[in-house]
Amino acid sequence: MSTPERGRVLLSVTGFNPQRWYDLLSKERDVVLEPDGAEDPSIDYAVVWKHQKGALAKLPNLKVIFSIGAGVDHIFADDQVPDVPIVRVVAENLTQYMCEYVTWRVLDHHRQGAVYREQQVRKVWHEPRQPPANEVSVGIMGLGQLGTRAAQALRAVGFSVNGWSRTPKDIDGVKGFHGEDGLTPFLNATDILVVLLPLTPATHGIVNHSLLSRLRQDGPLGGPCLINAGRGGLQRETDILKALEEGVLKEASLDVFEREPLAPESPLWSHPRVFVTPHAAATSDPAHLVPPMLQQMAAFERGEALENLVDRSAGY
Amino acid sequence: MSTPERGRVLLSVTGFNPQRWYDLLSKERDVVLEPDGAEDPSIDYAVVWKHQKGALAKLPNLKVIFSIGAGVDHIFADDQVPDVPIVRVVAENLTQYMCEYVTWRVLDHHRQGAVYREQQVRKVWHEPRQPPANEVSVGIMGLGQLGTRAAQALRAVGFSVNGWSRTPKDIDGVKGFHGEDGLTPFLNATDILVVLLPLTPATHGIVNHSLLSRLRQDGPLGGPCLINAGRGGLQRETDILKALEEGVLKEASLDVFEREPLAPESPLWSHPRVFVTPHAAATSDPAHLVPPMLQQMAAFERGEALENLVDRSAGY
Repeated sequence: MSTPERGRVLLSVTGFNPQRWYDLLSKERDVVLEPDGAEDPSIDYAVVWKHQKGALAKLPNLKVIFSIGAGVDHIFADDQVPDVPIVRVVAENLTQYMCEYVTWRVLDHHRQGAVYREQQVRKVWHEPRQPPANEVSVGIMGLGQLGTRAAQALRAVGFSVNGWSRTPKDIDGVKGFHGEDGLTPFLNATDILVVLLPLTPATHGIVNHSLLSRLRQDGPLGGPCLINAGRGGLQRETDILKALEEGVLKEASLDVFEREPLAPESPLWSHPRVFVTPHAAATSDPAHLVPPMLQQMAAFERGEALENLVDRSAGY
Repeated sequence: MSTPERGRVLLSVTGFNPQRWYDLLSKERDVVLEPDGAEDPSIDYAVVWKHQKGALAKLPNLKVIFSIGAGVDHIFADDQVPDVPIVRVVAENLTQYMCEYVTWRVLDHHRQGAVYREQQVRKVWHEPRQPPANEVSVGIMGLGQLGTRAAQALRAVGFSVNGWSRTPKDIDGVKGFHGEDGLTPFLNATDILVVLLPLTPATHGIVNHSLLSRLRQDGPLGGPCLINAGRGGLQRETDILKALEEGVLKEASLDVFEREPLAPESPLWSHPRVFVTPHAAATSDPAHLVPPMLQQMAAFERGEALENLVDRSAGY
């Protein structure tokens, strides 16, 4: 039911086929695919994932940018993003997937999946020492929607959970640390580090050797573990490999990488203590993410406020 | 502080070194190790794991039997068990470990751990279709202390949870099925089956081909998965292997086996869709399990009622 007065949508993505997004957005809106919509004055909205740099600045009447994905670093990678509101994806579906991934990886490190899989190959019947979850401290960096939900699930399984965020956050049952001063005490108390931070100039490369070497070294798991399900730009892969070699880091689960897809020559693929997934922790499913975008467009045209807006000064 | 009027304890275990159990029980009680205590009239209590058959019947003044482990099938394997109260282990520590194991294995099947590990070996960057947890139905057979806690954790992660038990049980957020009539509807609705039943004559071999073939075949995971963390006697391993070969069963995580340790020649060890752990889901840690036993002995001597008693007619 497209009417002339309804704003048109530019869909600009790279790295995947936008057909399902196109079909779902088209149910309510006229949609044009970039580059067809370059400099088109009839376009009010842009729905983007790693859009072509400079393309948004050419739209003279752009009113709102919608990010595909919870993070918006892919938008700010373009330094000509026009000064219009940017809406992040906040969807129960995405939060659910991330909660599953984080709980799964925490449990696989905690319950020594790698040890059992290696024993099975050798047909070894041996029970390694196993601490209970309440003796293990999971530290979550980034306490937004995703981190908060993961913290609650990990608490329900029985883990002790700490959190670190830029500004203070109060989550039931989670010991909070914040800011620059809180980082080292947080790391010193962490056995399994879960990274769910937004990628901003302030967090770029934060998972480096200095950070990893401050994780609790004498914890119950025989060494700390790292899970990065945030963004690849948060980590320095050479530092992770160095920390693994030195024994400063015991194991890692990485869903994101400095360059994606991960290059075949990366030593991470074949490292026996690294688990690799292809940026698949939380799928952006258009069936779940398009309806709230369409709702926000309609609300915006009725003069209502947009939700889940990005704070441009914070970068997320 | 052992005094003459306090009942003495026979410690009778096979399969592991009882030293830590001996040391901890000895802090409050005179402890004798079987076979030293055979026919000893001064023994009031027996603490047992797979004790020597017939040994308990020879103790003329035995008053209570304490099981090491949540299941008591190892006690009833002896058909001469004297008619005295039998106390099961119910310990937060044991419940915690089992909750972790079940949640871990459910998530590894749900999040396609085997697919990603195989892709990693081949350095393949590919995201398989992934349903969210709320579209996946986990069915727990056995809703005692362990099953109830696991159900709650799985709910917190986001799964739909059904339960089946001999008698009706009401657990918040869990759809309950019970008895013979409820079994097929329960199985028909189950994508990931978690077996936590006690081993009794009624449940022996219950995880057979007929049961596995009633699991939901057209569910979101591309086939049903089995997790047995109860007892090996509940399953028929030839039937599990047959169901895997036929595609009736997609994957299995087995912590228990018909004969333990699992024989090196068992095809389960090297089956690509079977995950083997050495009866390690929930460790019986004497530091956590001995104190409640000592408390019950003292309470019994003050004339108080014993807790967590086994129902001999039900066999658990």
